[in-house]
Amino acid sequence: MNCVLLPKNTKTIRDEQQVRHIKEVLKAKVGDNLTIGEIGGNIGKATLAQINTNEVILTDITLDKKPPAKLDLTVVLALPRPKVLRRLIMDMTSLGVNRLIIVNSYRTQKSYWQSPLLNRIDEFVFEGLQQAIDTMPPVIEFKKRFKPFVEDEFGDLLTEEDDAVVAHPYAEQSWKAYLDGLKSKSNHENIMPKILCIGAEGGWIAYEVDLFCKHGCTSVSLGERILRTETVVSVLLGHWLAE
Amino acid sequence: MNCVLLPKNTKTIRDEQQVRHIKEVLKAKVGDNLTIGEIGGNIGKATLAQINTNEVILTDITLDKKPPAKLDLTVVLALPRPKVLRRLIMDMTSLGVNRLIIVNSYRTQKSYWQSPLLNRIDEFVFEGLQQAIDTMPPVIEFKKRFKPFVEDEFGDLLTEEDDAVVAHPYAEQSWKAYLDGLKSKSNHENIMPKILCIGAEGGWIAYEVDLFCKHGCTSVSLGERILRTETVVSVLLGHWLAE
Repeated sequence: MNCVLLPKNTKTIRDEQQVRHIKEVLKAKVGDNLTIGEIGGNIGKATLAQINTNEVILTDITLDKKPPAKLDLTVVLALPRPKVLRRLIMDMTSLGVNRLIIVNSYRTQKSYWQSPLLNRIDEFVFEGLQQAIDTMPPVIEFKKRFKPFVEDEFGDLLTEEDDAVVAHPYAEQSWKAYLDGLKSKSNHENIMPKILCIGAEGGWIAYEVDLFCKHGCTSVSLGERILRTETVVSVLLGHWLAE
Repeated sequence: MNCVLLPKNTKTIRDEQQVRHIKEVLKAKVGDNLTIGEIGGNIGKATLAQINTNEVILTDITLDKKPPAKLDLTVVLALPRPKVLRRLIMDMTSLGVNRLIIVNSYRTQKSYWQSPLLNRIDEFVFEGLQQAIDTMPPVIEFKKRFKPFVEDEFGDLLTEEDDAVVAHPYAEQSWKAYLDGLKSKSNHENIMPKILCIGAEGGWIAYEVDLFCKHGCTSVSLGERILRTETVVSVLLGHWLAE
């Protein structure tokens, strides 16, 4: 938690985790400064006026800094095992993904859609925002039917100039060759794809990769090494961060 | 586990996790093929000849493929909270880091060095290799004293032409500007730094960053967003993967 994210006009922090963080991790004292953010608004500072048993009272609140820009990127993610959902949502939020569409896939077990963790997505987003000192949650959508989503909705996410990629360990083209191609196409300007599709454990099946490719995607591989979904997400998003 | 890693000349798998993986995750039957690797050797295939209660017997073993190349990279990592050590070691192994030096830092709590997880590093490496279908463990060293390590040993890890970076959220130069500089220096060849220094939670303190910089490092920032150590590792290593 690198900032404490608060609803508009909050002067008293009562959220249990935030109060505990201020007291036990930051070991803050009255008079100390605290980095805060207003949900959906600016980031800034406040001074701790009182530290009580279950609440912390703020004074001298200034919210004068814009949150960091979001990446111009939509991630389409196959619903992964619930166990890794928290970290994936946190990381994609921290890394600044603008929109996240969580879809069904052949290798998504049906039981994953029943997981109670799916009702806690907002918590994970909140954690990611507080990690990255951001205030703007990404837009998150769920698409339980793969084929209608790709056939009827996917194309609308792209304009004619936009590129989209699907990560697939067995794709012929490497991520590097693909990026080099993009750069030469755009006269060395740094243009990145607008959509990135990432499978969960076991990746997409060939049918799914083909359907994405029919609707505007290029399939790319990260090489011989097979990586965990969480690792792939950070490895790929790192290339947007550096643009 | 995308391959089952075995000591040389193994025909009977008795490792509990590997046997359970073959039976319960792969749901393999007699006659099925299995991707295997020889620790420190080649990768290849075997056929399942017998599946017994506590062992799996292999036949038709062929080990005809070299493991993927390692990255030409040494990572210097501040010892993190033991809780994240497993995933960090796994990920760096999967991503192909050649050498890992785990050092003390100002923000490393003394208790971390007493964690029983430090004795389980080999297990985490093993998991990372089986994830990435690799057979060659990275070299891993521990340096409990930061200053003597950087002052007396760090310089020897670099030749005069080699670059080294220290990741630091408050560095003036961005990772992107740094990479662009490297590329223009090397006439657009893809040359990457040979050493990457990554702090744990809270990052390096200014004294540590300065000491690295005195001994050949450039400090670079990933931008305004503050990321978890695990995320930073994958975000940065992704740039070596794509070279």
